[in-house]
Amino acid sequence: MQASVHTAVRELAAEVGRDALTVPMIAQRAGVTPSTIYRRWGDLQELLSDVAVERLRPDTAPRDHGALPADLTAWAEQFLDEMSSASGRAYIRDALLGDPDGGNAGQCSAYAAEQIDVILNRATERGEETPGVETVMDRVVSPLMYRILFRPDGLDAAYARGLVTGLLDPTGRWPGKAA
Amino acid sequence: MQASVHTAVRELAAEVGRDALTVPMIAQRAGVTPSTIYRRWGDLQELLSDVAVERLRPDTAPRDHGALPADLTAWAEQFLDEMSSASGRAYIRDALLGDPDGGNAGQCSAYAAEQIDVILNRATERGEETPGVETVMDRVVSPLMYRILFRPDGLDAAYARGLVTGLLDPTGRWPGKAA
Repeated sequence: MQASVHTAVRELAAEVGRDALTVPMIAQRAGVTPSTIYRRWGDLQELLSDVAVERLRPDTAPRDHGALPADLTAWAEQFLDEMSSASGRAYIRDALLGDPDGGNAGQCSAYAAEQIDVILNRATERGEETPGVETVMDRVVSPLMYRILFRPDGLDAAYARGLVTGLLDPTGRWPGKAA
Repeated sequence: MQASVHTAVRELAAEVGRDALTVPMIAQRAGVTPSTIYRRWGDLQELLSDVAVERLRPDTAPRDHGALPADLTAWAEQFLDEMSSASGRAYIRDALLGDPDGGNAGQCSAYAAEQIDVILNRATERGEETPGVETVMDRVVSPLMYRILFRPDGLDAAYARGLVTGLLDPTGRWPGKAA
């Protein structure tokens, strides 16, 4: 049932646009009654939030480029690319919104932390010195997501690379200052 | 007109709760017609977003404690305190939501940047070495806001202080790692 409702939301969003979605429309496409949807999700916003989190789940493990700086840089660039796209930003907003208990936002964050954990574990196995996963969340994921949500102007791959360089290079104390 | 509508929103939100607000209810309290509100704001969500940004505007300049570490630490603790409160989080969500062009979210971020700029300018005048304002946004504001929105569990003043310490202490390369 959940899968057919999620599919109906994605199909209809592509056809009529996200803002035109209604619960009866989704129910009809999914072949369930509206009351089934209200019982399971409460309201449209919570359903959209669940669909958004599902769409934000990474499909694959991060690619292995053979060294921590390359792995983390490639991951940060791809994360920025996906999350700052029009659909990525719409999913983030939906995930944050219809989320009374904060579980969906936490799940989005957990996805990023899991991907970074894979990258750091690979680096540790190679014998590389690594920061902790929470430090990478603070230094790379947080600034990317903050700027996507609050100040997207001028956000580009060079900025994402600079965050990773600043984290991994002990001589670059305040990278923004030297410029 | 804007001031009376904003006041009506704040009063009614306190009386009946934010989720029960309607445009006709707000119009009646403010002594304007509903169509006046629709013409000026488009819809309820955009009005709530404008009210939220107004509420998130700092009332005063940051306090001067005589040194950059103390100024930045006190500011970060207060910022976390205000933004992570129930009303703070509701305002952030409203500001992000009814914001088709991103101007309100950008304004929230500009408020934080202005406060930090005041702190950094004071430090420079004292002869202290300072990071740039964008570096403080990345290293202090972004992680605080990211965790408020995505993973509020365990967020406390010690975490805010640790961000400032990590930024200002050149020997603390990866503070999360040593623990």
